[in-house]
Amino acid sequence: MNEIDAVARRAADAAPAFAQVTDVRRAALLDAVADALDGAADELVAVAGEETALPEGRLRGELARTTAQLRKFGDVVREGTYLEATIDHADPSDVPPRPELRRMLRPIGPVAVFAASNFPFAFSVAGGDTASALAVGCPVIVKTHPGHPRTSSLTAGLVTSALADAPAGVFQTVAGFEQGLALVDAESIEAVAFTGSMRAGRALLERCTARPRPIPFYGELGSLNPVVVTPDADAARGAELAAGLAGSFQLGDGQFCTKPGLVFVPEASVLEAALPAHVAAGEPRMLTPAIAEGYETGRQRASAIPGVEVLAGGDAPTAPTVLAADIATLLAHRELLDEVFGPVTVLVRYRDAASLDAALGVLEGSLTMTLHAEPGDDVAGLAEWAASRAGRVLFGGWPTGVAVSWAQHHGGPWPATNTVFTSVGATAVRRFLRPVAYQDAPASVLPPALRDDNPLGIPRRVDGVLRLP
Amino acid sequence: MNEIDAVARRAADAAPAFAQVTDVRRAALLDAVADALDGAADELVAVAGEETALPEGRLRGELARTTAQLRKFGDVVREGTYLEATIDHADPSDVPPRPELRRMLRPIGPVAVFAASNFPFAFSVAGGDTASALAVGCPVIVKTHPGHPRTSSLTAGLVTSALADAPAGVFQTVAGFEQGLALVDAESIEAVAFTGSMRAGRALLERCTARPRPIPFYGELGSLNPVVVTPDADAARGAELAAGLAGSFQLGDGQFCTKPGLVFVPEASVLEAALPAHVAAGEPRMLTPAIAEGYETGRQRASAIPGVEVLAGGDAPTAPTVLAADIATLLAHRELLDEVFGPVTVLVRYRDAASLDAALGVLEGSLTMTLHAEPGDDVAGLAEWAASRAGRVLFGGWPTGVAVSWAQHHGGPWPATNTVFTSVGATAVRRFLRPVAYQDAPASVLPPALRDDNPLGIPRRVDGVLRLP
Repeated sequence: MNEIDAVARRAADAAPAFAQVTDVRRAALLDAVADALDGAADELVAVAGEETALPEGRLRGELARTTAQLRKFGDVVREGTYLEATIDHADPSDVPPRPELRRMLRPIGPVAVFAASNFPFAFSVAGGDTASALAVGCPVIVKTHPGHPRTSSLTAGLVTSALADAPAGVFQTVAGFEQGLALVDAESIEAVAFTGSMRAGRALLERCTARPRPIPFYGELGSLNPVVVTPDADAARGAELAAGLAGSFQLGDGQFCTKPGLVFVPEASVLEAALPAHVAAGEPRMLTPAIAEGYETGRQRASAIPGVEVLAGGDAPTAPTVLAADIATLLAHRELLDEVFGPVTVLVRYRDAASLDAALGVLEGSLTMTLHAEPGDDVAGLAEWAASRAGRVLFGGWPTGVAVSWAQHHGGPWPATNTVFTSVGATAVRRFLRPVAYQDAPASVLPPALRDDNPLGIPRRVDGVLRLP
Repeated sequence: MNEIDAVARRAADAAPAFAQVTDVRRAALLDAVADALDGAADELVAVAGEETALPEGRLRGELARTTAQLRKFGDVVREGTYLEATIDHADPSDVPPRPELRRMLRPIGPVAVFAASNFPFAFSVAGGDTASALAVGCPVIVKTHPGHPRTSSLTAGLVTSALADAPAGVFQTVAGFEQGLALVDAESIEAVAFTGSMRAGRALLERCTARPRPIPFYGELGSLNPVVVTPDADAARGAELAAGLAGSFQLGDGQFCTKPGLVFVPEASVLEAALPAHVAAGEPRMLTPAIAEGYETGRQRASAIPGVEVLAGGDAPTAPTVLAADIATLLAHRELLDEVFGPVTVLVRYRDAASLDAALGVLEGSLTMTLHAEPGDDVAGLAEWAASRAGRVLFGGWPTGVAVSWAQHHGGPWPATNTVFTSVGATAVRRFLRPVAYQDAPASVLPPALRDDNPLGIPRRVDGVLRLP
C-alpha cells in the first residue's frame, strides 16, 4: 500500500465512528475550528499575504468569511432538515403494497478535496468543501494547492488541533501533483470536490469515472459570468456601471471564478467611454507564475483576434486589460469566449435586441449572469434565458461577491460545474450525503433522526406530510 | 443534422415552454397518461405478455404500479417541497454581506431515458424515469428496449395522445442500439437515465463524461442484494424463510434488479435443507434470448467453481438453480460475487460471526441488503454495515417488492448506482432539476415559487426557517 492509499485507509477507518458523532457535536467541532483560525488570524493573514500577494484587507475578509462559513455549516446540521428524514408507515392498500419505510441521508464516506489557488482560506484547506463534508460526518483529505504551501500547513495544523477530540483520521492533507492523482484513485475515497481550471477538472472527472469503482466528482470549473447592460441602463448610469465593472473585474486581480469576463453593451455606450479611466496601471503580481503566464497568453491571444480592440491595458505583463469587439467578431471567433483567468474583460457591442440574442445563444453555462436594466425595460425574456444558462442570476450588482447563505447557489451548467450541486451555501452538504431507506426496522436499530419520538427535534415528512418539530 | 439530433433538438425547443407549464397542470397531464394506460390495460397486458413471456397477473400488477407511479409524481409536484424554494432577505451585517437571494430548483432540460428489458411498463416507455422527468418539466426521449417493441410502441402512442395539449416535442421515442448512442451524444440532451447491466451502464457513463459538454448519467446497474439469516432466525423459522426466499429469487424468473442473489446462512441450516423442494422444475422462457444465454453462462460458470455445490437446478437451460458454498470458497473465488441475472441464488454457509464478517467485508454496494434475525439477536452492527453498503436495508421480508413512496430509496453504492440519487420514489425527481439563485430580482421576473405572497402555497425556507404554507 502506498502512502496515499494509507492516508485514504485511515480516513475510511475513521468514517464509521465519525458518522456516529451527533450533528450537535460536529457543529461544535466546526465552531472550534473556526475559533482556532480566528485566533491565529494575524499569522495566517501574514503568511498568506507573503505567498499569494493578496492584500491584507482582502485576506482578513476572506478569513472571516471562511470561519463564518464553518459556523454556518454547523447551523445547517443543527437545524436538521438536511437529513431529509422521511417516514412512510405501512400501507397494504397502496399500489404496490407498502411496507414501513424510513429514509434519511447519511455521510458518503471519505472525501478528497482539491484546494484552489485563488482563495487560500475560503476554497482551501478549511474552505467550503472541507467544512461541508466535515459538517455531515465525512472524513476529509485535502490535496493542498502548491501556490500557498505554508498557509496550507499552518491552517492544517490549526484544524488538526481543533479536531483533537474527533475520531483520528477525519482530517488529513496531502501535497503534490502525483499524490493528488493517487488520491483520486485510492480505493477508499467516495467523492472528489474540486475548484480549479476546466482542463484539470475535466481530467479528474474522467479519472473518477475510469476508476474500477466510479465515484462522484464535484467540480467547479470555468465561468465567463456574462453581463448584459440595456441601452436604458447605460444611458441612466453608464458611468457608474463602468466604475462598478472596473472594480469587479479587477478585484483580486481578476482571479475570481465569478469575474465578469464578457459584458454586452450597446454600441457607443457611456460605459465603454468611461471604463478605461478606471483601469489600473501597473503589473499586478498574480497568485502563481503559472497563472501569470496563462493570463498573459490568454490576453494576448484574445487581443490578436481580428476585430478586437484594446481599450485599456499596456504592454506590461499582467496589466489589467479591457477589450472590445462587436457581435459579428464574437460569432466569428468563438475563442473570444475562452475564459482568461486574470484582470481582463471583453466588452461586446450590440446594435439591437436581435443581435444580442444571437450572441447570447452561443454562450455556454456560467456560474453567474448579470442584468443591468432600468425599471422600464422588459427583462423577462433575458431573465429566463439567464436562468437557463447560469446558476445565479443577478439583477444589478456585480457577481464577484458570493454570499454564504441558505439560498445561495454557486454552480450552473457546464463548464461552471459538471453536476446539479453547489459548492457554496447550505445545500453544498448534499454532495457528501447518500440516502438509505430502512424497511420494517426495529426501533432499536433506527438512527435517532428516524425514531418515532423525533429525539433530534427536526423537520420530517411523515406519510407524505412535511411536519415541523 | 442526423435524425437523432433532430429529435433532441425538438425536445430542446419544447423545454422552455414545458418549464413554464404549472406543476398543477403537469400533474394533470401525468394523470391523463395514467388514465390512458389504465384504459388500454387489456391490450397492453396482452401484447406485453406475448413479447416478454411474463404472466398476466404480474403484468397487470406492473401496469397498475406504473399508473399509480405517474399519479404519485403528480402528487409530489403539486405538494411543491421538491422546488426547495428558499428566500434569504438581504443582510448587510452578514459575513460577507448578503444581498437578497431566492433559490429554487428548475427543470434541467431534455432527458434521455433508456428503457429496461425486465419491466415493460414500470421501467420502460412510461416508467419511473419518464414520469419523474415529465413531472418536473423536462422533455423526455425514451430509447425503447428491443425486448418489447410492440409494447413500447403501443405505450408511446397512448402517452403521445394523452399529452396532446402539452408543448410539442415533450415526449418522443427512438429505437436501436446506434440510435441510443447517438442520443447520448446529442448536443441538446441534458441528462441520461438508465436501468440495465453494469457493462452497458458503465459504457454510457463514460460516454456521458466524454461528451464535449459532459452531462449527468443516472444509472441503475447491478446488485447482488445480499441476505443474512442469523442462526436464531434459521432455527425459529428456517422452513418459512426457505419458502420466502424461493418465491423471491424465482419471482419473474429472477429477472429483477432486487433479486436476492447471495444468502448467508448458518452451517447445516434448516433453510438450506428446505429450499430445494421449493425450486421450480422446468425451463422458464426468459425475457430475451440474450438474457437466457447470459443466465446459462453465468449459472454454469458459478456452478463450476471448485467448492460450489449445486443444491437444485437441472441441466435444462434456464432452470432455476440454488448453489451453495462456504465462506472460504467465496473469499477464494470472488467471481461468485458476479451478478447472474435470472433464477439463481447462492447460499453461503458461515460458521460464526467472524467468518460472516470476513465475507461481508468483501461485498460491493447493492440496492438492498436484508437481515433475518430474531428479537434476541443483536443486529446493530449488521444493520450499520448494511446501511453502509446498500440503499435499502430490510429487516425481514424480501427485497423484490419495491414500493413507490416518499421514503423509498432505490439506489446504493456502486455498482447499484453511480450517483447519490434514487430511480424510484418521490425524490427521483431530483435527478432532473438544477438550482438557480435569483439575486436582487424585481418581483416581476420571479417565478411564482419565489414570490413574496407564495401564490403556490408551498413549503419554503425564509431566512433560514422552514415554513409550511
